[in-house]
Amino acid sequence: MRLHGYFRSSAAYRVRIALNLKGVSAEHAFRHLRKGEHRAADYLAMNPQGLVPTLELDNGALLTQSLAIVEWLDETHPTPALLPADPLQRARVRAVALAIACETHPLQNLRILGWVRELCGEEAAQAWAKRVNAEGLAACEKLIANEPGPFCFGAQPTLADICIIPQLGNARRFGVDLSGFPRLLQAEAACKALPAFADAAPEKQGDAE
Amino acid sequence: MRLHGYFRSSAAYRVRIALNLKGVSAEHAFRHLRKGEHRAADYLAMNPQGLVPTLELDNGALLTQSLAIVEWLDETHPTPALLPADPLQRARVRAVALAIACETHPLQNLRILGWVRELCGEEAAQAWAKRVNAEGLAACEKLIANEPGPFCFGAQPTLADICIIPQLGNARRFGVDLSGFPRLLQAEAACKALPAFADAAPEKQGDAE
Repeated sequence: MRLHGYFRSSAAYRVRIALNLKGVSAEHAFRHLRKGEHRAADYLAMNPQGLVPTLELDNGALLTQSLAIVEWLDETHPTPALLPADPLQRARVRAVALAIACETHPLQNLRILGWVRELCGEEAAQAWAKRVNAEGLAACEKLIANEPGPFCFGAQPTLADICIIPQLGNARRFGVDLSGFPRLLQAEAACKALPAFADAAPEKQGDAE
Repeated sequence: MRLHGYFRSSAAYRVRIALNLKGVSAEHAFRHLRKGEHRAADYLAMNPQGLVPTLELDNGALLTQSLAIVEWLDETHPTPALLPADPLQRARVRAVALAIACETHPLQNLRILGWVRELCGEEAAQAWAKRVNAEGLAACEKLIANEPGPFCFGAQPTLADICIIPQLGNARRFGVDLSGFPRLLQAEAACKALPAFADAAPEKQGDAE
């Protein structure tokens, strides 16, 4: 299979982590977002949203949307599980993942910051991104406050950690003070000690700048 | 169980549809978003994001994030299934749902339109909302173009329809021309013929204005 991504894309980063946790190898095809390569006709034919990542399977099937890809990986390669077995806990893990994937990440990606910048300038775009990250992570900190560590939900990484770790990187880039999020930082430290997370980091990718 | 929602919230609307499709009855608690009732301390204690919906189970457990709630419903009440059995088709259904839930709905909800309005005024907010809806739905139209109808994915409604139908309502409110989306409109017609969808519509809710 081949993963179409970009080193700095949080959504591609999530899929890289999941592939590594599952021990599934993929070729990497790079789509340079700042150069607009995700808006090229050949890429839009694969991914009508013009977003990374896209996972291209060996049979030619094209999977889009990082969380759909990670759920597919978890269903087709069940070990190690990325979601708990209990439905209620699965819902809690998915809620944290979705709090990042719905109300945090898409509000501060290149596309939307470009819109804000065009309307109101760079300073407004930076303040917008900082606020989005701070509010999204603050909610996640509360959502896992009563869960055992060191990961977001106990002794193993889950889909929640897969979404939180890339977002913490974004938050730092936008200058968010993370000191109020001790549980998220605890989960990050546990994740970063695992090669599956460390090897998926943006700076380790072939297209890193 | 009790669903905390708001008649016009797309995310609450999704959960209402799913409950109806599953034949699961729930009390409805109304949180008036325009009056800020989702920002009240008692509600933030239930839902740290301050978003609707929240599903409160009889044992006191609190579920947040509409897609996590719908997946929980599908796992605990398997019939009728809201996702296909085949992993690849599940991924495709989830991708459409996420294209709405990640890059469309949260970019045009009350919270974010409030930010845009504050920065640039009402006209900019309306144009922003229209663009978000048009781009999100255009991508979904392409994602299902080769799928059999009448629903988004064949003969039964899925999680994709559950997300598409409320979003089409938003798009109309913002004046989006839907004539370029024949497959979405076909799915909508099929859904609206089902009481599970019709009864979940905003105008049928106890808090509708």
